[in-house]
Amino acid sequence: MPILVHKYGGTSMGTTERILSNAHRIAADIRRGYNVAVVVSAMAGETNRLLGLADAIDPKSSGRERDVLASAGEQVSIALMAIALHKVGIEAVSFTASQAGIVTDPFHTRAKIKSIDAGRLRSVLEKGGVPVVAGFQGVTDDMEVTTLGRGASDTSAAAIAAALGAERCDIYTDVDGVYAADPRIVRGARKLARISYDEMLEMAGSGSKVLQTRSVVFAKKYRVPLQVLTSFEDKPGTLISEEVEGMEEILVTGICSDKTEARISVYGIPDQPGIAAQVFEQLASQGLSVDMIVQGKGEDGLANMSFTVTKSDLNDAVKATEVVAKKLKARQVSVDEKIAKVSIVGVGMKSHGGVAAKMFRALADKGINIYMISTSEIRISVVIDEDYTELAVRTLAKDFDLIEEDEGVVSA
Amino acid sequence: MPILVHKYGGTSMGTTERILSNAHRIAADIRRGYNVAVVVSAMAGETNRLLGLADAIDPKSSGRERDVLASAGEQVSIALMAIALHKVGIEAVSFTASQAGIVTDPFHTRAKIKSIDAGRLRSVLEKGGVPVVAGFQGVTDDMEVTTLGRGASDTSAAAIAAALGAERCDIYTDVDGVYAADPRIVRGARKLARISYDEMLEMAGSGSKVLQTRSVVFAKKYRVPLQVLTSFEDKPGTLISEEVEGMEEILVTGICSDKTEARISVYGIPDQPGIAAQVFEQLASQGLSVDMIVQGKGEDGLANMSFTVTKSDLNDAVKATEVVAKKLKARQVSVDEKIAKVSIVGVGMKSHGGVAAKMFRALADKGINIYMISTSEIRISVVIDEDYTELAVRTLAKDFDLIEEDEGVVSA
Repeated sequence: MPILVHKYGGTSMGTTERILSNAHRIAADIRRGYNVAVVVSAMAGETNRLLGLADAIDPKSSGRERDVLASAGEQVSIALMAIALHKVGIEAVSFTASQAGIVTDPFHTRAKIKSIDAGRLRSVLEKGGVPVVAGFQGVTDDMEVTTLGRGASDTSAAAIAAALGAERCDIYTDVDGVYAADPRIVRGARKLARISYDEMLEMAGSGSKVLQTRSVVFAKKYRVPLQVLTSFEDKPGTLISEEVEGMEEILVTGICSDKTEARISVYGIPDQPGIAAQVFEQLASQGLSVDMIVQGKGEDGLANMSFTVTKSDLNDAVKATEVVAKKLKARQVSVDEKIAKVSIVGVGMKSHGGVAAKMFRALADKGINIYMISTSEIRISVVIDEDYTELAVRTLAKDFDLIEEDEGVVSA
Repeated sequence: MPILVHKYGGTSMGTTERILSNAHRIAADIRRGYNVAVVVSAMAGETNRLLGLADAIDPKSSGRERDVLASAGEQVSIALMAIALHKVGIEAVSFTASQAGIVTDPFHTRAKIKSIDAGRLRSVLEKGGVPVVAGFQGVTDDMEVTTLGRGASDTSAAAIAAALGAERCDIYTDVDGVYAADPRIVRGARKLARISYDEMLEMAGSGSKVLQTRSVVFAKKYRVPLQVLTSFEDKPGTLISEEVEGMEEILVTGICSDKTEARISVYGIPDQPGIAAQVFEQLASQGLSVDMIVQGKGEDGLANMSFTVTKSDLNDAVKATEVVAKKLKARQVSVDEKIAKVSIVGVGMKSHGGVAAKMFRALADKGINIYMISTSEIRISVVIDEDYTELAVRTLAKDFDLIEEDEGVVSA
């Protein structure tokens, strides 16, 4: 029988009534002839409540203990979801990540899935039952509890869908799909019926909070279609799948903005080969990842380097950078937290020229200064002053035709 | 170095302030030259909150899922306690029951500890660290999460103290020791400085809620002294240990009452050998335990049998009893939930006669009818009408001299 994975986020698990309503939805898909596996997040607000308790004792508390703490939230959800499924007459068995064999690397609070032993889940499915798996968490080879980073239950779901060879992974959330631009910024932004994995990857990596990047990576790698839809209404969402004919006709599919990154700059480095490698090896050895990178030479003949990291990693990243900067005898390390990244994404860029020029012109016309630029085959991102984020997004949404007819642009 | 086990109950874990205060107390014992292992309960109210969510979906939800759910409460506590210990400069590592190797039988919601693999805890202690272990929970050989029954964190603590060969297990709670009678019923009831394992066992089995019976069983078996004391003040509590000289001079050490049991009666059973065995084998096969038993012959030549079980097991026990009753062609099975058990306990009974007679006389003088009697070497229990519980306890406390001087008896 074909397998579906249902994933329910925090708001969809927010009350016992909603949990029961999810159980009925799962029952409906089973009646349609599917085997269903379920992945759940902690109840809305619970992860914040738990980490708030830790912060009350020590905001710098250890990652290991924060993971033990936070993972309790999903443990509650799996049990309640299984109980709700029993209530509507469906066999179900809850699984912590440890029980489900979701093995990760040992980087606490931002672990990455290494493997999933789907055997136990599969044996429940084969008996017609529903395995209910805790999202967000994993376990190391040494049986240490890890978590995968905030919002990573989507990744758990996509990885489990991949491990089970699921026909589709339905991500139930509090938004009804993926929009061409954030509707809170751009009134009337188009909802997308369909988007390719690559576009969604670029969107997720560019500040769209609908799905975690890694969930799309898993989905793409194992060719599992994802559907983003709401558990609050019964209507189709956005399907994320392989690129299909016609997608390239649209120049730009979506626009995203991201205020979660900060820029670290290292000035006055002796300009010699291998310097960037030294900096980024140091960061990578601590599990810190870098997004945009710009390197150039100053008037003094010395090199300058800027890169962005997420603000939550900023302290660790600055420390790591200062270690290397000292070794390289760099003049200065500085930090700018007041930046935003604005990106346009679309497979259409592959076959249409001039998109970058059109974007830069639009921003220039509004007097918005560009600090950094990075591009991929289907994405152009710029770093600008945080204050101009909304203006930039609205301007680009209008210029690239991402607004439904008869809708205006929200005024500032 | 000598090892102490500290156990903190729900009220002692009720707020982050109290958790930090516990960390300071642990630090003080470490400065005194001890290695300390810690066992914690869920934060006050948390287990009820979690099981309340399950009940909102289905009050008859599966034991397996209720265990997964409830065990999340202690998981939160171990992480917060470890974080608090780090904060005061002490190395600490949290352990779920699964990580600590606390293996139980598979009876969900009332599992019993089979073994503890103290290796991981010991390796933390040997490095001068504090292992912080989740009470109340265990794991089966098949990695299924179990819980040991409400209040069983004391049992976890005593079992861990035994496994580690601890010098003493300090049970921090919201009462400051063991009293000769419940001070809420008997004003001025004596606080005991010391009580023997056997007396405490009888007290715990007779309705004293200070410690779970099984915790005392572990402590006695492995000769670990327990101390019951409060985490809210700095003063000595009650030491539970081997019997020492002088204890026998007191006729009665304590009085307890228990309203948590119900009586099941089977009437009109053919009087033949092996009938009691059939009934109790049936109950035992489902992990249900029976407390008091009375069997007698009626005027019709047929046997009648009464026994008590805890009210939480009542439904299961009645079902099991009815199965056997039908097989035996018994006339009737009836249930009485409005009963109470009142017990007097004291090693002094071993060397003093007439204690039972004095007890029965005291109750008779107040017009209290006795339904069932059971005795051990150091305990006499009677089952009476629930309505007379407090009157019986006060009367016995006065007659057996368990009230401090200058204190009266609370009037009804």
